[in-house]
Amino acid sequence: LSKVIAFVFPQGKGGNKHFQSDKPEGFLQAERTLNFHLLPKTVKRRVYALKRLQLQSANIEAKFYEEVHELERKYAGLYQPNFDKRRDIVAGAVEPTDEECEWQSDREEEELAEDLQKKAALEEKQADSAGADDPRGVPEFWLTIFKRVNMLAEMLQEHDEPILKHLQDITVKFSEPGQPMSFTLEFYFEPNSYFSNTVLTKVYKMKSEPDAEDPFSFEGPEIIDCEGCKIDWHKGKDVTVRIVKKKQKHKGRGTVRTVTKEVPQESFFNFFNPEKGKRKCDLDFTLTTDFEIGHFFRERVIPRAVLYFTGEALEDDESVRLLSCVIQDLDDEGEEEDEGDFDPTVSI
Amino acid sequence: LSKVIAFVFPQGKGGNKHFQSDKPEGFLQAERTLNFHLLPKTVKRRVYALKRLQLQSANIEAKFYEEVHELERKYAGLYQPNFDKRRDIVAGAVEPTDEECEWQSDREEEELAEDLQKKAALEEKQADSAGADDPRGVPEFWLTIFKRVNMLAEMLQEHDEPILKHLQDITVKFSEPGQPMSFTLEFYFEPNSYFSNTVLTKVYKMKSEPDAEDPFSFEGPEIIDCEGCKIDWHKGKDVTVRIVKKKQKHKGRGTVRTVTKEVPQESFFNFFNPEKGKRKCDLDFTLTTDFEIGHFFRERVIPRAVLYFTGEALEDDESVRLLSCVIQDLDDEGEEEDEGDFDPTVSI
Repeated sequence: LSKVIAFVFPQGKGGNKHFQSDKPEGFLQAERTLNFHLLPKTVKRRVYALKRLQLQSANIEAKFYEEVHELERKYAGLYQPNFDKRRDIVAGAVEPTDEECEWQSDREEEELAEDLQKKAALEEKQADSAGADDPRGVPEFWLTIFKRVNMLAEMLQEHDEPILKHLQDITVKFSEPGQPMSFTLEFYFEPNSYFSNTVLTKVYKMKSEPDAEDPFSFEGPEIIDCEGCKIDWHKGKDVTVRIVKKKQKHKGRGTVRTVTKEVPQESFFNFFNPEKGKRKCDLDFTLTTDFEIGHFFRERVIPRAVLYFTGEALEDDESVRLLSCVIQDLDDEGEEEDEGDFDPTVSI
Repeated sequence: LSKVIAFVFPQGKGGNKHFQSDKPEGFLQAERTLNFHLLPKTVKRRVYALKRLQLQSANIEAKFYEEVHELERKYAGLYQPNFDKRRDIVAGAVEPTDEECEWQSDREEEELAEDLQKKAALEEKQADSAGADDPRGVPEFWLTIFKRVNMLAEMLQEHDEPILKHLQDITVKFSEPGQPMSFTLEFYFEPNSYFSNTVLTKVYKMKSEPDAEDPFSFEGPEIIDCEGCKIDWHKGKDVTVRIVKKKQKHKGRGTVRTVTKEVPQESFFNFFNPEKGKRKCDLDFTLTTDFEIGHFFRERVIPRAVLYFTGEALEDDESVRLLSCVIQDLDDEGEEEDEGDFDPTVSI
């Protein structure tokens, strides 16, 4: 829904970009208030009346967004048969008919440079003969998407890849009417040797009403919290930790013994860490990223997965890429220092 | 609607930012296609089936946005009584009751630095006594907004200001169901000495369906065209032109005579130039800005005018302001050179 119109105001809130701000913030604030105070009392009174009307509008707006949420629920149902079909084709549970596979790919062929095409033809032949044992469905469909989409690739570690080969579907579920607004991402896995869960979930809770303290900042539903789930790892398979050996010296006797300890390590599967959403205050930046990822799964990856698989979701917009770099730079400034690798042999 | 969630992807389209793009675009494109070509035929076939499903989803999505548009029409009706009341209070046609003006402004008072407050108290007194002839409504309500919002202030010229003092309301009207999707901005003026129109309009036409050529780029309705209106200026009052005197030398006789000619000059009222939307190809940048302005009126200025009047729509988000500056810089790079002022005494 963040895409109804191509011109999205990057600030999201308040249209700040368009406000004159060549004076220091504090001064501006004071000047503004002063200007307001300079108004004759009768006029100020009328402006307060306008603000009360604005409050009413904010409450109407909240109802509007509730109805949009309902509409999203309704359409989730309409998309579902397509998503189910996608899941079945990807998993190899269903083989599409010839009619279902018809695709005008002439243009794509043309776009392929000629030498690349020759190479492709050759390798395709090899691939076909090598794959005499015809692969099931679309192998590594979701893993390929994880590798191709930067935001996801950043979370992906080498040890995650064999696990994500078992990922068979990602879905989003919206909260029921009357419930607090939320959406749940569900990651479905085929039986595997890493954990016993068949589905890993992450709930994003949303705030859908104006804040009593600051009603005018309301801009529609906002993610305010999230909750992962416990992964039941098989013994020794948990990729979110690693075993470090530490040498302990006995204070009195001076003897040294080696103990092993689990320490956290980077992994996509930390995304489901149920504790993550709770450490709110000190992790503002991380949480923002987490919310962005949740939103990105919901709005882009899940609805149009095949376009990320083929790469078509990437568009050749140079200015956008330029802007992205800049945003990346700004993001980096906000990021904390890398914590550095754990040294597994450190003595304590 | 571009604000359902605070995390708006600045690129609007395709989530490009999150795509790995450390290789040249052409190479990436080829590599991607090649990767796709390397897939066994049976797998490629299934991916085509997934793309056909994706096409169906794009068409469902178009229906979703039509329903959102309907919802917006419905809510426009619910907001309207508040907007009417606002118009009447601003114009002084209605005096709000004491109850309607109740406002908890303690916090605002506190925020005002003490010395400023003293000054304010003094000037307020002066203002009140000076304004023994109590001003009608909220004078210069819309003009103040034009001055405060950068995007509008950039269009505003000194000669526009006395005219905009007569602006009494701005509204948005959505297209009827079954009609091609559009919205119309309407600017209502009280009778004035500049032009005879009581309302100036600008229609923004939208495209609400996937493009047959490129269906996967569909991201919801998009502004594709706009149309202003003719302003019936009173004689000599048109601020969108100015009179220049030019000296003409007779080729044969060498005598010089002075002729006057109207040349365009900058003015907010060029916003209504009915020709503007038509010169499409050579004015891409200008049109983008025009579309942004239309969207900004619709989504921000009209729904929450009083917050721009008081300045509350401005939020103190330093990172956002930083980002805005950068975006501004990028914009500037795309801009054409200034054409420079017209020299009114140039000889031809």
